[in-house]
Amino acid sequence: MTQISAPYLIYLGNTEIAQFAKTGQGLVHWRPERCLAQLRETGCQADLGLPDMTIKDAVAVGAKTLVIGTTFIGGQLPDAWIARLSEALEAGLDIAAGLHQSLASVPQLRDAAARNGRAIHDVRVSKKELPIASGKRRTGNRLLAMGTDCAVGKKYSALAIHRAMEARGMKATFRATGQTGVLIDGTGIAADAIVSDFLAGAVEQLTPAADADHWDVIEGQGSLIHPAYSGVTLGLLHGAQPNAFVVCHEVGREELSGFPGNKTGQIEEIIALTMLLGERFSPDIKCVGLCLNTSGLTEVESKAILLTLAEKHGVAACDPVRFGVNDIVQNL
Amino acid sequence: MTQISAPYLIYLGNTEIAQFAKTGQGLVHWRPERCLAQLRETGCQADLGLPDMTIKDAVAVGAKTLVIGTTFIGGQLPDAWIARLSEALEAGLDIAAGLHQSLASVPQLRDAAARNGRAIHDVRVSKKELPIASGKRRTGNRLLAMGTDCAVGKKYSALAIHRAMEARGMKATFRATGQTGVLIDGTGIAADAIVSDFLAGAVEQLTPAADADHWDVIEGQGSLIHPAYSGVTLGLLHGAQPNAFVVCHEVGREELSGFPGNKTGQIEEIIALTMLLGERFSPDIKCVGLCLNTSGLTEVESKAILLTLAEKHGVAACDPVRFGVNDIVQNL
Repeated sequence: MTQISAPYLIYLGNTEIAQFAKTGQGLVHWRPERCLAQLRETGCQADLGLPDMTIKDAVAVGAKTLVIGTTFIGGQLPDAWIARLSEALEAGLDIAAGLHQSLASVPQLRDAAARNGRAIHDVRVSKKELPIASGKRRTGNRLLAMGTDCAVGKKYSALAIHRAMEARGMKATFRATGQTGVLIDGTGIAADAIVSDFLAGAVEQLTPAADADHWDVIEGQGSLIHPAYSGVTLGLLHGAQPNAFVVCHEVGREELSGFPGNKTGQIEEIIALTMLLGERFSPDIKCVGLCLNTSGLTEVESKAILLTLAEKHGVAACDPVRFGVNDIVQNL
Repeated sequence: MTQISAPYLIYLGNTEIAQFAKTGQGLVHWRPERCLAQLRETGCQADLGLPDMTIKDAVAVGAKTLVIGTTFIGGQLPDAWIARLSEALEAGLDIAAGLHQSLASVPQLRDAAARNGRAIHDVRVSKKELPIASGKRRTGNRLLAMGTDCAVGKKYSALAIHRAMEARGMKATFRATGQTGVLIDGTGIAADAIVSDFLAGAVEQLTPAADADHWDVIEGQGSLIHPAYSGVTLGLLHGAQPNAFVVCHEVGREELSGFPGNKTGQIEEIIALTMLLGERFSPDIKCVGLCLNTSGLTEVESKAILLTLAEKHGVAACDPVRFGVNDIVQNL
């Protein structure tokens, strides 16, 4: 399992489009205590609202890892970025990223890390040594975010539920299963990069036995009805053995994003499939809420649809971004 | 996708336990036309009934690949095997195996292969460059073997159905999804070694659009209710888009093999889950038969249980090893 040392110096490069710094924004929003400063090159249009620091200054005030907080478009890392990342390694920082191109595959960075005894965290690249799942029942509560498609707010919902639990004094741990989640939390697994045979085992390891009043809140991936990623979703479900799940859905989305001709899952379909597939390993599994993205609606419309869907499915329905998730968490 | 050149010289080493040559036996049973000769060291107790040949003799009569046909127990390949494999590469043969230890990870073999322009096929190790599944519907018929557990005869059933189809003059292709299947057929994918995100895509590539009267008969993996491998099974199901499936089951097996405390799937449960999960991408999906391992029963008992289960589930029920699969194939 990846373990990234905090606090972070977040690298934004020279990104000209502020929205490309989405990962950095997620870090600051969900784990402000892990984010020390930002480093921006000339021309950078993104701003996370953190103090700007050089590598030297950040190290002086305790930074441990330079995290790339912006999307990089293109095939090869630009030379200017490589020089900056090398500088970070030479100055004693680890480096971390969820880019398609592995940082450790760049000889200059690999050598600099080895020379300085620093770590390179390519959170998209999974470790080789993973266990096969045991299927053994374990103690503690686990809540998994399911979805009617990819990119419907599973990560956001899990982070929001975890935060709401902590705010209520509940014992809870967020469990990241995707690269951005791992960068945000500093630990976790990138489920989609794990060899199929080891996926459920890696999730078992990520969410071990715990106290009877403890909650692991687990970021979900994909959808049980997704043509490309359903295997990841089922591996997560069986590895996690959740006793509770939420269904995440974007109101108004009709087709699977990027898969024209394929309808998104129906909420009732995802609930039924999750119950049916999950109950073998979690006999008391149940749906505890709907997390809906209603950003296409007015506030009045949004509240109306939340009421309608809560009644229809007999569970709490929230828009985590607009109104939070207290309606779900107060019932747990 | 792996492509192994035939004919094979099957290497059995010095295995002292004849049953360890199960892979070799599978090759000879299912693809005798690909098997030219066997090579056995002093003390070898296995015999595939093929002519014994030296590497030199096998090359002289046209052998293309030395395939390791026996299980190797232990951590490192013995020096004597490495020497023999090197000799094969030097003599102009490719080498292939489905061992845990990758042959290409042995420097002596890697160097010999490079020097002689030969291929090393580690069929357990999957290729890096794989597509994401598209979810697009495609022409042709696809039959997938599902199961109530691992090791219940999915490979055997698919190979038997494929053979029976060919015997009836039907257009059919066997599609291997596991290492032994790949060695037997010389082509295919090792699904369990593929990174989760690419699994369904690899299966789409393995089973492309085909003529309306053509059948791809696809080896299955795992089980939809398996705690460790269910993700592999669902990835296969969604990638394959089968319009027909069989359920393989060992009569009398109560617990998942190697997973104490976990019950095997019920036949009706596997049929229902496969229909429910499969019909999104294969609206006309249906169960076309049961493939049962009744080796624990007498012949009379076996015939009785086949009749009972055929009636109960409303489909043909066969024991492929004992009585063949004609009852299934004649209805397709």
